[in-house]
Amino acid sequence: MTNSENTILTVGSLAFDTVETPAGKADQVLGGSCNYFSIAASFFTPVQIVGVVGQDFPQNHLETLNSRGIDISGVEISAGKTFHWSGKYNQNLNEAQTLATDLNVLENFNPKLSPEHQKAPYVFLANIDPDLQLKVLEQNECSKLVACDSMNFWIEQKKEQLLTTLKKVDVLCINETEAYLLSGESNLSSAADKIFSLGPKTIILKRGEYGAALFTPTCTFAIPAYLTSKIVDPTGCGDSFAGALMGYIAKENLDRNTLTENPELWSKALKHAILNGCVMASFTIEDFSLNRIIKLDKTEFLERKSQFEKMISI
Amino acid sequence: MTNSENTILTVGSLAFDTVETPAGKADQVLGGSCNYFSIAASFFTPVQIVGVVGQDFPQNHLETLNSRGIDISGVEISAGKTFHWSGKYNQNLNEAQTLATDLNVLENFNPKLSPEHQKAPYVFLANIDPDLQLKVLEQNECSKLVACDSMNFWIEQKKEQLLTTLKKVDVLCINETEAYLLSGESNLSSAADKIFSLGPKTIILKRGEYGAALFTPTCTFAIPAYLTSKIVDPTGCGDSFAGALMGYIAKENLDRNTLTENPELWSKALKHAILNGCVMASFTIEDFSLNRIIKLDKTEFLERKSQFEKMISI
Repeated sequence: MTNSENTILTVGSLAFDTVETPAGKADQVLGGSCNYFSIAASFFTPVQIVGVVGQDFPQNHLETLNSRGIDISGVEISAGKTFHWSGKYNQNLNEAQTLATDLNVLENFNPKLSPEHQKAPYVFLANIDPDLQLKVLEQNECSKLVACDSMNFWIEQKKEQLLTTLKKVDVLCINETEAYLLSGESNLSSAADKIFSLGPKTIILKRGEYGAALFTPTCTFAIPAYLTSKIVDPTGCGDSFAGALMGYIAKENLDRNTLTENPELWSKALKHAILNGCVMASFTIEDFSLNRIIKLDKTEFLERKSQFEKMISI
Repeated sequence: MTNSENTILTVGSLAFDTVETPAGKADQVLGGSCNYFSIAASFFTPVQIVGVVGQDFPQNHLETLNSRGIDISGVEISAGKTFHWSGKYNQNLNEAQTLATDLNVLENFNPKLSPEHQKAPYVFLANIDPDLQLKVLEQNECSKLVACDSMNFWIEQKKEQLLTTLKKVDVLCINETEAYLLSGESNLSSAADKIFSLGPKTIILKRGEYGAALFTPTCTFAIPAYLTSKIVDPTGCGDSFAGALMGYIAKENLDRNTLTENPELWSKALKHAILNGCVMASFTIEDFSLNRIIKLDKTEFLERKSQFEKMISI
């Protein structure tokens, strides 16, 4: 598969999840940041996955990804078991309590990019060990845009490596609690100022059921989440938010120079990207695993997007 | 003082507060729902207060209220001490931990409305014992609009009286956690549906640093809060939010019939009312007590309102 000018290369986890929420429980279901991200992004643009699974990973799921135009040639099938995450959400759905993390084949993963993948114009480093993020980044000759997610665990355990990665990142997309932890600040504006100094000049802060905020050196923007009554499982909402967001940025063919050359256009595009991210997340939460977004069609998506725009306009 | 067609009558507390936040501590400073509400509302429309203070209450503060066109003839000065609330906020500024509540003169307060107050066209029942809210409501021949606030304590301790009050209330303005408690539901949409059945057909849910949501039978709307880096004390943010909101509704001369006769106009006006409420709250949080909003001028308010509109528009 050759690259288009809109192709996104993503590295992250492909996983089995065991999840408990107030709405029920799901055992050993498909998950992982890369899975959620790539399915969401595939609504907008071609996607290439770099990742690893064990021999227990269902072949038909890889075929499903492939049938959506997602390039899975970078998914290594390794001897052993697929990464497994187990977590629980209590009434506060904004924060998961991790019960178990079995790295399995992810433990010795050493990503090697194919010549095509080395030339992918957009890179999204999903939530994964910053060492792996960096390895992918170093092999890619991407010149357009790099975006990145992370989590509390890496901020606390691998801060130095994460800071090295961040120097090469244009767009950082993390939760607000992670932004507080990373910056040491206690309000969003100050946190954003601090993070600007670490590298990324565009910061998207995910706020769970409260939507998201955007900070660039010239723009501050906040948006609530879509208000829904169907809430089943928030797992993957942040990853699918990022998928639709990044998918939109790539489809619009934006690059890092837009920020400095046309900040007005950049912030307008980012706002639309975030809007798409919120809509995608509002579907993800309606069912366990990838169940809802895998059967989502473009018409439903656009209908809700239009509802959402009405919900937030004055 | 005679009523204009835009006058709001409000009943609530006038208090001394002792507050501790991550930004510092304030001892025995002016507070109370009625104080915050009336100062905020006075930016928009004439206000009449019904309340009680002790002999320790500073005369010059009553004069300050008076100088802003707030009718204090319904403020009873009673033998004894003014109501005192003491509370503490930890990192989560959305929820105060109450350390002490000394009712003092509020304990035996029995509001009696003057003939003018009985004819006030708008009534706002600030957060106070639902028995007192009901007493005021029964004496007022208001025909235009009644709005109401409450809190967890009354929902738990005086639910029956609160439900009696709610039957006569057009606009309920409470925190989202209070809405969950009142409705027994666990998402905002279902909570709103349940509360519709209790009386109020317009529900405004305050979400602290995350803004607010509006529910009417024909409209769902959500707005984030103004993102600020100056955060000192959230006490009174909800009350001043309600003051600006209600002030705008009264200034626009809306009444309960607008909801059924012109739901489009009603929801548009309510959105603007909420916008004003968010801006007012963003000033309140910048200092302890009433300090910031008492020195706020209309120009500053309008400047931030315009900034805020930019911050939330796509």
